[in-house]
Amino acid sequence: MKISVVSVGTELLKDKINTNLLYISKKIFSLGLKVLFSSTVADDIKTLSEVLSYHLNVSDIIITTGGLGPTIDDVTKECVSKLLNKKLVFCREIYENIVRYFIEKNQEVPNLAEKQAYVIDGAEILVNKIGHAPGQKIVVKKDNKEKILYLLPGPPRELQPMFDEYVLKDLKKFQTRVYKEKIFHICNIPESKIEEIIKPVLEIEQKYSSETEFSILPHLNIVDVKVAIYGHDELKVDEELTLIKDHIYECFKNAGLSNAIYGEDNQTLEQVIGPLLAKHRKTLAVAESCTGGLLANRITNVAGSSFYFLGGCVTYSNFLKEKILNVKKETLETYGAVSEQTVKEMCIGLKTLVGADYCISISGIAGPTGGTKEKPVGTVWICVYDGKEFFTQCFRFLGGRLEVKEQAVNSALEMLRQKLIKDLR
Amino acid sequence: MKISVVSVGTELLKDKINTNLLYISKKIFSLGLKVLFSSTVADDIKTLSEVLSYHLNVSDIIITTGGLGPTIDDVTKECVSKLLNKKLVFCREIYENIVRYFIEKNQEVPNLAEKQAYVIDGAEILVNKIGHAPGQKIVVKKDNKEKILYLLPGPPRELQPMFDEYVLKDLKKFQTRVYKEKIFHICNIPESKIEEIIKPVLEIEQKYSSETEFSILPHLNIVDVKVAIYGHDELKVDEELTLIKDHIYECFKNAGLSNAIYGEDNQTLEQVIGPLLAKHRKTLAVAESCTGGLLANRITNVAGSSFYFLGGCVTYSNFLKEKILNVKKETLETYGAVSEQTVKEMCIGLKTLVGADYCISISGIAGPTGGTKEKPVGTVWICVYDGKEFFTQCFRFLGGRLEVKEQAVNSALEMLRQKLIKDLR
Repeated sequence: MKISVVSVGTELLKDKINTNLLYISKKIFSLGLKVLFSSTVADDIKTLSEVLSYHLNVSDIIITTGGLGPTIDDVTKECVSKLLNKKLVFCREIYENIVRYFIEKNQEVPNLAEKQAYVIDGAEILVNKIGHAPGQKIVVKKDNKEKILYLLPGPPRELQPMFDEYVLKDLKKFQTRVYKEKIFHICNIPESKIEEIIKPVLEIEQKYSSETEFSILPHLNIVDVKVAIYGHDELKVDEELTLIKDHIYECFKNAGLSNAIYGEDNQTLEQVIGPLLAKHRKTLAVAESCTGGLLANRITNVAGSSFYFLGGCVTYSNFLKEKILNVKKETLETYGAVSEQTVKEMCIGLKTLVGADYCISISGIAGPTGGTKEKPVGTVWICVYDGKEFFTQCFRFLGGRLEVKEQAVNSALEMLRQKLIKDLR
Repeated sequence: MKISVVSVGTELLKDKINTNLLYISKKIFSLGLKVLFSSTVADDIKTLSEVLSYHLNVSDIIITTGGLGPTIDDVTKECVSKLLNKKLVFCREIYENIVRYFIEKNQEVPNLAEKQAYVIDGAEILVNKIGHAPGQKIVVKKDNKEKILYLLPGPPRELQPMFDEYVLKDLKKFQTRVYKEKIFHICNIPESKIEEIIKPVLEIEQKYSSETEFSILPHLNIVDVKVAIYGHDELKVDEELTLIKDHIYECFKNAGLSNAIYGEDNQTLEQVIGPLLAKHRKTLAVAESCTGGLLANRITNVAGSSFYFLGGCVTYSNFLKEKILNVKKETLETYGAVSEQTVKEMCIGLKTLVGADYCISISGIAGPTGGTKEKPVGTVWICVYDGKEFFTQCFRFLGGRLEVKEQAVNSALEMLRQKLIKDLR
């Protein structure tokens, strides 16, 4: 089953990242099928005709996105009509729906609405519940083979539910094998070390009957270990995925890093610490210098974070470190703002001010300037404090200002997570 | 001059957004040339051969990205070699460079390094200063026409400088017309209102001798007005762009909104307020509730922000609003945390605590829960305070939690900008 995608729109070759392709291809992958290739074409009738004709020659299923709107830029329908030698016919039902929409909104029906109501002769209409451009499914006989063409609108909000409801449902019939994947996230352990730790898993790949693929993907100081399995029997694939999962956790345990994996699949560090805190009715506060609010921002991106997150301070200046957090002038003068002593005092001050169960403080040099030989750009001190014990660490992050901020926040959340696991056991 | 792009990599049809295409196509657009279409192909030698062959048939210049690494997944070189019927030859210079790299790093030279050193017979080597995979430029005669094939590596860090140094330089020779664009950013004015304001500019489009394109692109509560001009004479295009620019500013002035455009091209709100504050040696502090640190984070994403940004508080809980900012218990009880009175008192408390020249406070309901009939999710109060006057506004933002946070921060920065322009005049 050869599947290909054609994305139509000059903006995709000029201004805008094409997010539809990945949405579609990921879902198709999850069926154990593949998108063999995809083309992106400008709103140019000649080029689109050529490219569509090529796709019709080599693919069995072609999904187009975009170019279904009412303006002269929108050429997909016309192209397909000419290419397949099928007329465009007026669909009264679509037209009435559009008219009703504008009347209900007390708006004038635009002249262009009529164009929207024309569809390829014989096409099945795919209902667009969000926008006005209906989708279409066209079955074509070519070289004695049946080919299917899906025309979907470009706006992701419209395309996504339509793809799920119509195309994905159809494609399930062609599903011959199962595809499943699992991603494990690890923070603050280098990629090479992780490769070494999970070597036993990678080596016994042949042991598994299904087709398995391992990949190790680093993103700043977070590494993702991804396991992808294809197979014919869903139960068996699930079983093997569980086996591999257990094996991976075991490898980390054997390396003395039982709690290294902080989350799976779409879980983020901030999502993981939330339930840990909430379950044990503990509260959190943060004091940030170089990360400038990013830590608090990441924590509060999680819905319901107000149950455990009290708030904090962005003491970007030394003046505020003294004024709000009572960091001693002598500490700042003797050790500097980026020092173990300073982050400890920031935590003490924060604990006194806010009274949270756990306090985190961060102070570092995000760059591009401000670095010295002893403390180069990327030097960051982090402290986690529970009112009794300090848990401090110094990092040297690589990258630009934003990368340093992000790595510092990841590390702070990971340090808190390790502390919470220890304390809440 | 028909230009097309082929992106190679299964990950682009599975895990990863293709950012190379837009990087390449934008730069080509800036030369007044166009990428007619592009294909994305999995690491599959048969499909890639077919697609490349199609591109060679219809395009004059083909740029491929990815698939040049040393592993078995990397098939671009082999494909091109077979397709063009040209041998792969060993390049001693490339091999020596790779060996030197590993020796200098005190690392073992990997076995796969040799594969990297093979290039298409007759290809011009494009030096990769970041990674190991060299690029290649191959000139082919096909149907009596000269076609050029550029093979570039996939990692953006490697591709970008190589594209600029080699491909873009070559393409400049084919430049027959000039392309320039200018983008104007506006916050908190609806798209439809902006369309109305700049109607006189849109209407006299025909007055301009060059080909001009206007587009209005909304992103949450920010709207971009984009002007794109093609022409044959660079001076004339520049002149017209200046005319249009002046005309757009004039339209906003006539609508009583002289300062509506906060920035041009790549400028962000946080970048714009920085110099305004720094120039006049004024300082800033922020007190955030529902935005949870995002405002401080955006401000501190700008290098050098420590010159004007003192810091602030994330008073996520009512308890901290009272404790740190001295918001009165009665205010919170009578009017609620999301009210004009609360954001005013947050600013007063912040001013007392930090002493900054300008204070901003934000309190709202980011959702998904916490909304009421009177104050639905998306209700946000913002206050800007200079120690004398309060400048407050209430917004009702649409969208999810993250969208509400982002719009609130945009609005807060825009309110500060308006205040600064007024005060610093």
